[in-house]
Amino acid sequence: MIEAAAARADGIVRRTPLLSSPFLDEISGGRVFVKAECLQHTGSFKFRGGWSALSGMPQDAIKRGVIAFSSGNHAQGIALAAKMRGVPAVIVMPEDAPKLKIGNTRALGAEVVLYNREEQDRDQVADRVNRGRGLTLVKPFDEPFVIAGQGTTGLEIAEQALEVGVSAAQVLVPCGGGGLSSGIALALETHAPEMIVRPCEPVGFDDVLRSLASRGIERNNLMNGSICDAILTPSPGELTFPIMQRLCGPGCAVSDNDCLRAMQLAFSRLKIVIEPGGAAALAAALFHRDSLGEGDIITVASGGNVDAGVFQKALEIEPLVQSPR
Amino acid sequence: MIEAAAARADGIVRRTPLLSSPFLDEISGGRVFVKAECLQHTGSFKFRGGWSALSGMPQDAIKRGVIAFSSGNHAQGIALAAKMRGVPAVIVMPEDAPKLKIGNTRALGAEVVLYNREEQDRDQVADRVNRGRGLTLVKPFDEPFVIAGQGTTGLEIAEQALEVGVSAAQVLVPCGGGGLSSGIALALETHAPEMIVRPCEPVGFDDVLRSLASRGIERNNLMNGSICDAILTPSPGELTFPIMQRLCGPGCAVSDNDCLRAMQLAFSRLKIVIEPGGAAALAAALFHRDSLGEGDIITVASGGNVDAGVFQKALEIEPLVQSPR
Repeated sequence: MIEAAAARADGIVRRTPLLSSPFLDEISGGRVFVKAECLQHTGSFKFRGGWSALSGMPQDAIKRGVIAFSSGNHAQGIALAAKMRGVPAVIVMPEDAPKLKIGNTRALGAEVVLYNREEQDRDQVADRVNRGRGLTLVKPFDEPFVIAGQGTTGLEIAEQALEVGVSAAQVLVPCGGGGLSSGIALALETHAPEMIVRPCEPVGFDDVLRSLASRGIERNNLMNGSICDAILTPSPGELTFPIMQRLCGPGCAVSDNDCLRAMQLAFSRLKIVIEPGGAAALAAALFHRDSLGEGDIITVASGGNVDAGVFQKALEIEPLVQSPR
Repeated sequence: MIEAAAARADGIVRRTPLLSSPFLDEISGGRVFVKAECLQHTGSFKFRGGWSALSGMPQDAIKRGVIAFSSGNHAQGIALAAKMRGVPAVIVMPEDAPKLKIGNTRALGAEVVLYNREEQDRDQVADRVNRGRGLTLVKPFDEPFVIAGQGTTGLEIAEQALEVGVSAAQVLVPCGGGGLSSGIALALETHAPEMIVRPCEPVGFDDVLRSLASRGIERNNLMNGSICDAILTPSPGELTFPIMQRLCGPGCAVSDNDCLRAMQLAFSRLKIVIEPGGAAALAAALFHRDSLGEGDIITVASGGNVDAGVFQKALEIEPLVQSPR
């Protein structure tokens, strides 16, 4: 399914570059590569899964339109994919989602339905919207076509790593529900079997880390309280977790401050914009080498949809001084 | 020479992506593509010319080392190229150059010699440093190997434009001494003859614009007073000007504020970091369509070496509100 998704994505999904900097290598204490998925259409990898679903699902199922729940990146990925397929998209978003993400989703042509997270049930809102319309739900991660689309990132990583002479590496991936981690892990299983995926999460929202450790699905106690909005998912998915359990190494947890520092270094050393959740893997590579061990590291910078105010916080941190070599 | 430079650059110089966003197209009133050369090694296109010179010049000439004058991007490009060739590099930099650029140049292994722009003669400083050392000067733009290296950007533009179905376009290029503009123009003359380069400069530092209009080399009255530090060159080069005169369309001048607004939009819509001078071409595409006319536009984002404080100024500008479509 991943290879089929890649064929459907050819010429449509952007092949994002694999970046690096000797300054980042020095901080990490080993080579670090960054798959800059923030440069993907709509500013995150989510367009891969959105396009895979809209182009791969039976066309009878989607011709009346699609519906999705999302506070941001999945919303934009589905909105653009639906627009390109010429079918309607309805996105149910919490009314406290970042204004930029709501605005972008509308600007991409989707019908946005806002709901109040504390007072309304999301599924009831969706059922009411969908009455008589026959829209098809596209889940954000527990959907085979979506996992396959995210997995195309792994095919590119395998190829691009070989171009820089890397065949064995730890592949660190920011992890919410596990769609990207499981998709990449499946792709690497065949195309780069010496690589292993390690999901990265914010401290306090490390449901995947704990689930992998306990070998059963664990949940987060909190739903907010981290700046990493893109990856605050309550628990790994029913489809994604068994894949991660079979193929992934231990998870890694990073602090909000680690993510802000990684965002600053991506700004100064790579010239890319990463959002807090999208910086979780780079943060692990830069500041948690002790728990990773030696060897090459590939990180995914999974998204860049960050408000200017949050980005400014990252820029205001005292920069790390690197000595002349 | 450009094709030979491209062969020497294979696997070493980064093939930077050609990005786009429907939001930028809407602002410009037509399709706009961005060659993200800020993602090049050392954060600017200058590494192309540096590597071309260090790999192409007779090895007898450079084995004792190279010397260059630069306040920033050329410095880093030469420093990295020399390090990769294993030869010493001495960079003569004004002591008021951005601290980050001085620090990076040193960190890349070069010997940095600072001088006072008002009290010291740059050439005398270089002569003194070079006494008995036999270092070879690598000029920033009036050097055939450097122009050829910058021209490899044009080869990539021609190929990448075809991949998105574009064969005819105006190619807007931030312009200092004209190395990048003339190199790209030479590459496109053969590889995309329906494209035309238009150099972009800051208002008040539009020596190339005026030189092209008068058909003779004109100079700027001022040496500073714009935030576009990377492209404040007093006049076009003796080698670059005849090439630009033969191949380029009229120049385009943009304000510092245009550049800051373009930097903000590159942040929010493309997720890349551009420095003020590197944003001059995108600024022209977004805010000066009236002087460009209709048709597809390709812009080069030539560098991203910007201090956090300047970048924050760009983020603080009131964002442009784009209507839902």
